[in-house]
Amino acid sequence: MGERNLYLSNTPVEEAVSIYTDALKDIIKVSYETIPVTGALNRTTKSAVYAKYSSPMFNAAAMDGIAVISAHTDGAAETNPIDLAIGEDYKIVDTGDPIDPPFDAVIMAEDLIDLGNGKVRIIASAAPWEHIRPIGEDIIAGEMILPSNHLIRPIDIGVLLSAGILDVEVIRKPTVAIFPTGTEIIEPTETPKAGDIIESNSRMFENMVAVEGGEAHRFPPVEDNYNKIKEKVEAASQEYDMVIVNAGSSAGTEDYTVHVLRELGTVLVHGVAIKPGKPVILAIVNGKPVIGLPGYPVSAYIGFKNFVSPVLAMYLNREAEKKDTIDAIISRRIVSSLKHKEYVRVKIGRVGEKIVAAPLARGAGAAMSLVRADGFCVIEQSSEGVESGELVKVELYRSLEEIEHTLVSVGSHDLIMDIVSDMMPNIYKNMYLSSTHVGSMGGLMALMRGEAHIAPIHLLDEETGEYNISYIKRMFKEKMALIRGVGRVQGFLVKKGNPLGIRSFDDIKKCRYVNRQRGAGTRILFDYKLKENNMNPDEINGYGLEMTTHMAVAALVQSESADVGMGIQSAAKVMGLDFIPVGLEQYDFAIPQKYLELDYIKAFISILKSDAFKEKLEELGGYTHDNIGDVICL
Amino acid sequence: MGERNLYLSNTPVEEAVSIYTDALKDIIKVSYETIPVTGALNRTTKSAVYAKYSSPMFNAAAMDGIAVISAHTDGAAETNPIDLAIGEDYKIVDTGDPIDPPFDAVIMAEDLIDLGNGKVRIIASAAPWEHIRPIGEDIIAGEMILPSNHLIRPIDIGVLLSAGILDVEVIRKPTVAIFPTGTEIIEPTETPKAGDIIESNSRMFENMVAVEGGEAHRFPPVEDNYNKIKEKVEAASQEYDMVIVNAGSSAGTEDYTVHVLRELGTVLVHGVAIKPGKPVILAIVNGKPVIGLPGYPVSAYIGFKNFVSPVLAMYLNREAEKKDTIDAIISRRIVSSLKHKEYVRVKIGRVGEKIVAAPLARGAGAAMSLVRADGFCVIEQSSEGVESGELVKVELYRSLEEIEHTLVSVGSHDLIMDIVSDMMPNIYKNMYLSSTHVGSMGGLMALMRGEAHIAPIHLLDEETGEYNISYIKRMFKEKMALIRGVGRVQGFLVKKGNPLGIRSFDDIKKCRYVNRQRGAGTRILFDYKLKENNMNPDEINGYGLEMTTHMAVAALVQSESADVGMGIQSAAKVMGLDFIPVGLEQYDFAIPQKYLELDYIKAFISILKSDAFKEKLEELGGYTHDNIGDVICL
Repeated sequence: MGERNLYLSNTPVEEAVSIYTDALKDIIKVSYETIPVTGALNRTTKSAVYAKYSSPMFNAAAMDGIAVISAHTDGAAETNPIDLAIGEDYKIVDTGDPIDPPFDAVIMAEDLIDLGNGKVRIIASAAPWEHIRPIGEDIIAGEMILPSNHLIRPIDIGVLLSAGILDVEVIRKPTVAIFPTGTEIIEPTETPKAGDIIESNSRMFENMVAVEGGEAHRFPPVEDNYNKIKEKVEAASQEYDMVIVNAGSSAGTEDYTVHVLRELGTVLVHGVAIKPGKPVILAIVNGKPVIGLPGYPVSAYIGFKNFVSPVLAMYLNREAEKKDTIDAIISRRIVSSLKHKEYVRVKIGRVGEKIVAAPLARGAGAAMSLVRADGFCVIEQSSEGVESGELVKVELYRSLEEIEHTLVSVGSHDLIMDIVSDMMPNIYKNMYLSSTHVGSMGGLMALMRGEAHIAPIHLLDEETGEYNISYIKRMFKEKMALIRGVGRVQGFLVKKGNPLGIRSFDDIKKCRYVNRQRGAGTRILFDYKLKENNMNPDEINGYGLEMTTHMAVAALVQSESADVGMGIQSAAKVMGLDFIPVGLEQYDFAIPQKYLELDYIKAFISILKSDAFKEKLEELGGYTHDNIGDVICL
Repeated sequence: MGERNLYLSNTPVEEAVSIYTDALKDIIKVSYETIPVTGALNRTTKSAVYAKYSSPMFNAAAMDGIAVISAHTDGAAETNPIDLAIGEDYKIVDTGDPIDPPFDAVIMAEDLIDLGNGKVRIIASAAPWEHIRPIGEDIIAGEMILPSNHLIRPIDIGVLLSAGILDVEVIRKPTVAIFPTGTEIIEPTETPKAGDIIESNSRMFENMVAVEGGEAHRFPPVEDNYNKIKEKVEAASQEYDMVIVNAGSSAGTEDYTVHVLRELGTVLVHGVAIKPGKPVILAIVNGKPVIGLPGYPVSAYIGFKNFVSPVLAMYLNREAEKKDTIDAIISRRIVSSLKHKEYVRVKIGRVGEKIVAAPLARGAGAAMSLVRADGFCVIEQSSEGVESGELVKVELYRSLEEIEHTLVSVGSHDLIMDIVSDMMPNIYKNMYLSSTHVGSMGGLMALMRGEAHIAPIHLLDEETGEYNISYIKRMFKEKMALIRGVGRVQGFLVKKGNPLGIRSFDDIKKCRYVNRQRGAGTRILFDYKLKENNMNPDEINGYGLEMTTHMAVAALVQSESADVGMGIQSAAKVMGLDFIPVGLEQYDFAIPQKYLELDYIKAFISILKSDAFKEKLEELGGYTHDNIGDVICL
């Protein structure tokens, strides 16, 4: 076997962070630069800033009107009006005009009676300094206007300029060199060949650095070559404040990063008890932090948040940002190992009184789980996991307000759920659809536990051959309803042109099949049809290969990893496959009657009934939509 | 009198916004542009984005180890080890490597026994597809990866690139032309002469536009000239999506904006029932929104937030941002008119169980009140104000977490409070000092109502000639303590060189005096000294001119608006004045004993006792610091 350094350490996250930040404490020096105030938004002041000028810089009229000599107005009253002459007794002033002696008060224009010929009549006296903004009322020269270590906002820029400050000394942005590495990676602009991986982590890092106040410099990919990686890291550690190497941070045959960093400097941690994200390297080279992050997108993201962000915060003299957390009920059991702290991505919604967190795909490669996530449920290393229904802390990545306005759907997957969730907030301001996919039975279970508003299902009653209604009636005690969805043609997805000539269940015996997971409506239909054809699972090669969505099945067939799978026509169409119809099934929405009056349920139903939605169904193909959106109380 | 259009309307805020947005609804068209994904951070998608490629694009090893033919591993167990040969039975793979037929499973490196010569031994079988990431596990070609109208984050950029998307259609940033106007305004780079006002609002707007997702173009100041303003606005309304004119939006003699806008287009609203910020103009010229905003900085800010932000949000197809609100107890009575909705800036702090909001300066010109504010207390137009102690809603501009870690000081002002509040968060992470200035007596009253942790005071007991302690003992029932502060030399602040030769109380009779507000320690001392000198207030010209800080008094003397005021030496020093000592007073901190154990009180005391702080006192001059920081239980 090739050269491998199999064993990463398994340092707990907090320990790894403190080992690293302790080592960096004396190395990282916050540095400063002087920049024009006009470009200082979101920068942090070095020291307190003192006003150069007062504002106003002179005694100024606070109103539009006339400047008067207050003594000349003494005694004015409705019963004793006093007439004033321009020049002698008053001059006209607008707000902000300077008031100089002998004038010492302003009377508002609204309180004057214009007599013509430069004469005005007043019926109330003016007190000295009335309606005058004295010099320095707002800002006094010499006064502290911004404290040190202050994040500059638009209003601060206005005040600094008013106070005569043109330049301000701020914390310099830390510069971060980002090196994507790997012989198999290609730039997104290249056309991928078999085995190529499109490099995208570095672009995510680049933007994360910018959001957190640093200045990223992303380099082109470096191949897996010890000397090339060494040369790049050594040069960058001299020129930049920080270096990120991605990936090659693990212990595989081509993972050179840790060896390079050991030669160039000190590796403080290699391997952290975190999932996803274990193969992290925390090193110091030429007095600069150099961090190796794993290549899986979720690992890369979580590694950045846990290890890069605290170092950026040190350079910026701030605390690393903390996300708001809320308590939520976890909708599924999560088993986690004592070997690591785990970051589980979750969808969040409010159902009745409960805030519910539904776990998304846990794999390190599941970047889409990050895109879809409303937050992270963090399972501490000391925990073996959480039971379904347990209260968990969730770090929120979406506002609580949005979550309060979200229809929570848990159940079977169909492409139409993506379409409705896209249409909903665009048609109904501030209403959202969150859709998690656990199969039809899983959806009904979630409804029963009060963790969803609706469950999209397509469950065949093997006795009656009918869909959905008998399941709902059998399982629920509370009053339920069914919102009519779509009829879907289910069938075999096969390679374009159907090279193996698959027509019937008998034909699939000779092929590599790809199955759906237990509880999925498509799986139930497949099992039902197997029985109908007097076949049993042993005869199906690939029965054990379970995918959780129609699209995933289609993708495996499209890539020739399987010859046939069962699914819906729209998946075949999107992936360019042929489709052999097997039957029509009904995809509906189970809902407790008590939720029918919710605003977003009404919105959901009216989208289903809309012409725009029906047009999209026609475009996708393979759907019928008779009675769509009708509500049947059971 | 000159030409004046005295009367602004007084349209309620919500009505003004809806008149304007209704009129703009059919005019403003959201427009789009296609940009590279790598530059799409914080931009908003036009339509749903679908994956071009799957990710992974091939079946890939999910672990470092060997790819095997699962059938060759059948039956492997500890009691029945199977040996595999390279090439024939397995090949070495790293995570992410493609797995092609006949290989159909991966065994982790950790589970192998290396026998040398290309042979490995396994003691467990591998199931088909074990440790393989099937094609499309993360992203499936054709799948919706981002919905429409989605704000793009760093993770989205990563996923888009992984899915083969290089360009994305996003909402075009609205362009906003900003025109500062006014003959009296100068650029911040110019040296101000008497009557000049430094133009800074446009720079604040520019940055507010950027923060809210627009693209600002700020023009040089335009003088108050009807034709010039007309020419600029007309051209800009053709080239930009939106125009802001600042100021000249009122009805003064030189307020041309409204006339210009009436000639060029339609003025929908002139004058809004809002304080500060009444003289707002909402107009449409050449089919573009043109908004006139008032010149006072606070009015300008509030006008922008209420009227510009909603229009920007329309162009960006989003909802205008809403701030979090909290309930707080208002610490002072606020009288507000039924004529307007009022935005009162407040400092927020937690004292015991109460969240307390202390109103800051209410003037439209008080830009520093915006800088210092933790939030806005909004008094609806339908309300005549709130009583002290009443619960109010506050829009928060600072995190609740910071507020929880804030020492709340209410009382007399001294420059040292600014210095401590600057030092505190820099020495003690996440601890803050919030200081509001209402005079010594006001501070003790706030303590008594449980609205502050400490009250800085300097109250002379006229009977004993002693400071502070007797007041605290007399006023409080609960157990109180005194934290020793500084000795301050109080004296007369006079123009450099003391041209009027002021030496004694007798000398000030012939001068223009500037006084402090009632309840201020300095005022009490002044009144005490007057009595001692057998003088009475009538003899003092300017006794009624009350300023609320030492610095404000110093500023009036410095600008020759007054000849003499009483105050502290540091204020004289900062403002370049001469100082004639009158006496030494004690500036201490009253505190209920129950607060002595709070972390930030301990931090406050240790700062007072620190050498760094004492050095700053020496620099300022006029202070003694014997026993500073000592706690005396009363």
